[in-house]
Amino acid sequence: MPDGGTGIRPPVRVVVVGAGFSGLAAASVLAGAGAQVAVLEARDRVGGRVLTRRLADGTALDLGAQWIGPTQDRMAALVAEHALTTFPSASVGAATVLWDGRRRDAPPDSAHRLVALLDADAAEVDPAAPWRAARAAEWDRTTLGGWLAEVAADPVSARYVGRLLAGGLLAADPAEVSLLQLLFYLRSGGGSGLLLAMAGGAQQDRIVGGPAALAERMAAALPPGSVVTGTPVRAIGHDDAGVVAYTDGGLHRADAAVVALAPALAGRIGYDPPLPALRDGLTQRMPMGAALKVHAVYPEPFWRADGLSGVSTAAEGPVTETVDNGVPGSSRGVLTAFAYGGEARELRRMSPQRRRAALVDALVAIVGPAAARPDEVVEYDWSADEWTRGCFCGALTPGSWAGYGPELRRPTGRVHWAGTETATRWAGYLEGAVLAGERAAAEVLAAHA
Amino acid sequence: MPDGGTGIRPPVRVVVVGAGFSGLAAASVLAGAGAQVAVLEARDRVGGRVLTRRLADGTALDLGAQWIGPTQDRMAALVAEHALTTFPSASVGAATVLWDGRRRDAPPDSAHRLVALLDADAAEVDPAAPWRAARAAEWDRTTLGGWLAEVAADPVSARYVGRLLAGGLLAADPAEVSLLQLLFYLRSGGGSGLLLAMAGGAQQDRIVGGPAALAERMAAALPPGSVVTGTPVRAIGHDDAGVVAYTDGGLHRADAAVVALAPALAGRIGYDPPLPALRDGLTQRMPMGAALKVHAVYPEPFWRADGLSGVSTAAEGPVTETVDNGVPGSSRGVLTAFAYGGEARELRRMSPQRRRAALVDALVAIVGPAAARPDEVVEYDWSADEWTRGCFCGALTPGSWAGYGPELRRPTGRVHWAGTETATRWAGYLEGAVLAGERAAAEVLAAHA
Repeated sequence: MPDGGTGIRPPVRVVVVGAGFSGLAAASVLAGAGAQVAVLEARDRVGGRVLTRRLADGTALDLGAQWIGPTQDRMAALVAEHALTTFPSASVGAATVLWDGRRRDAPPDSAHRLVALLDADAAEVDPAAPWRAARAAEWDRTTLGGWLAEVAADPVSARYVGRLLAGGLLAADPAEVSLLQLLFYLRSGGGSGLLLAMAGGAQQDRIVGGPAALAERMAAALPPGSVVTGTPVRAIGHDDAGVVAYTDGGLHRADAAVVALAPALAGRIGYDPPLPALRDGLTQRMPMGAALKVHAVYPEPFWRADGLSGVSTAAEGPVTETVDNGVPGSSRGVLTAFAYGGEARELRRMSPQRRRAALVDALVAIVGPAAARPDEVVEYDWSADEWTRGCFCGALTPGSWAGYGPELRRPTGRVHWAGTETATRWAGYLEGAVLAGERAAAEVLAAHA
Repeated sequence: MPDGGTGIRPPVRVVVVGAGFSGLAAASVLAGAGAQVAVLEARDRVGGRVLTRRLADGTALDLGAQWIGPTQDRMAALVAEHALTTFPSASVGAATVLWDGRRRDAPPDSAHRLVALLDADAAEVDPAAPWRAARAAEWDRTTLGGWLAEVAADPVSARYVGRLLAGGLLAADPAEVSLLQLLFYLRSGGGSGLLLAMAGGAQQDRIVGGPAALAERMAAALPPGSVVTGTPVRAIGHDDAGVVAYTDGGLHRADAAVVALAPALAGRIGYDPPLPALRDGLTQRMPMGAALKVHAVYPEPFWRADGLSGVSTAAEGPVTETVDNGVPGSSRGVLTAFAYGGEARELRRMSPQRRRAALVDALVAIVGPAAARPDEVVEYDWSADEWTRGCFCGALTPGSWAGYGPELRRPTGRVHWAGTETATRWAGYLEGAVLAGERAAAEVLAAHA
């Protein structure tokens, strides 16, 4: 870019598409380096896949992503930087495992052994290039569901581990997830121990005010006017000279773009010239998960008095997991239930009344009859949200890693790709979103500043 | 709709999105029933995934879909109705099978046995509801690649059958295709015998002038002004009162819409209100295949004099299949090579020079050294084409049939879905496209006329 003889280079201009954590993290780095940033967000709010809803009494419910934990260092730093605090997730008392019609306080060894086999294989996967693993081809043509049917000691163990890993981690059915995709994810998050644990793991802490509060502060810390909400980017023109983002309200010219969306959504933007075949093919092969997260709110967390933590996992029934989702400063009891894949779709097909009844029945099975009458039941359907279309994240379909994995982070000229799906550490998590945004920002600065 | 007291109902107005065979077939039925039809096509031509290119001497090359065969009755009827004729595909002489470094004239029994096992299972699949098969869950969690690795007598047989079926039928890798998807496809096309054969099968006949000639005549037979090319539909508004299709040049109001696009492309249009979660989820889980189809043109079909048909299949190398693609009235020899999935992507990554060399080497291995110097090599990249994004068709990813298959043909209010992917007979073929378009048209007339 000419400097008009002043010797002073004008700032690099960057359009960031999406004001989720990945886009906000990218914008923060870019603005910090002196770039001029426009963050264009389709929704009327920032935060992407996080959303906090307050009940009449102030109790905050996190309808989307909600946890941070050990080794998620960038999230911890952002919380501190923006003067927010965390609190430990409630997990006092005994966990419940629903297993073959009975209640246990832990899954049997048969389940642990299956998970241990997968952790061992995950150690052989480079999360930056899973397709290079020696057994990558075998792992990517084998679904978790198919593998469990072969390897599990019994059908209940197969079902439990399938629900816990394909469901609990990727919000998918075991038949939809290849071993390679699962092993990548396990490795990216530091192994099943870290990924599945409450205390000591990815569900350890929550942010006071919800992660939405952090997103709002990250946005507010950008130069005034940087974030434009209610502005879907319809198309991106790009050539050697720069980029143009087209919106219903006009166009934004810049030197580079960071598209901080899940690939499935990034593929729905028009590009001129069109995306290369392989990058476009990636966007066709990374569907978003299907999760149902429902909060049942009670006058108090009655299960604690019974010595129960409210934390459960289940080998059967519509609900795969529950947690005690109470927040400091509120006396209300919040039990949050998760259903995934086929179970989530089945619940969605029900009328709200039937769905509520099915969920309440499931909670009664875990914490007893006092769960039968919640004050409120609160849910949000991320799969129906035009600007998310599923959660927690996108996952590559079986057999796709070798052909399309290398396109996850490869820039298309001046268009750079962020979003938690492109992370190599904590992919699918808020931490991965931030790391991906910062990586994309660094790419832009290296290439165009 | 009010009739103003005349007793005459105004004609139903229908917007058809896409002027491929499915959209044109839908429009023909609708117009024939007195509907007022606007076919909006993004490209500057009709025909969708068919494209005919003429060489300087007039030799016609079909760059996309090109064959019709027995039981494809609607295509046969359309050819006759529009006064076109067909000619038999050239297949005089011996076929070649490249197998473990050797040439054979047929694959060994080990390959036939595998295909026979699949045909037997396909007989248990209802192509209108594959998810209802007794073994659907097992079949959809098992990829063809995984199954072959378990069941095939030897690795060459596994590779050959994987390339022939996942590649030759769906332009995918065996690891990308579940058994359920493959069995659906086999059943939809009447079994492997019909699907794979030249004479007596789906590759039996070609249309003089190419299928593009038929598409043009179908379009020309519609009322004047019905087809509007160069007009991508960006969004579709729909409610109880009607639909509105938004284009760069303005909007089209109608009583109903038929979206005659592959689901992956239909998902890239905006909808207001947004598509229901399950229908949107379908569009995320049906990626287009990846095929490379290259025509090598010679002064004459020299292989015929050597007693070779030019028809080949290969267990190894970049090219999975070849055919003699000469046309009546031209003395040129045309050898057409097909590569699929990983092999297609690898060839695409090469420079045009290297790709040409690799392809010509493969042809030399099949028909001898005279193949080394083609006059011309002609290809077209459907995966790079913004309005197609892959071929031959979309295929549901492993584990997706139960959750999303029921959405293939379920209308979204006044928006109806066509495209060959929605067909229950000859899905993926021109015949399936026509059947799907006619089915969607009948739906519209039943619901809105």
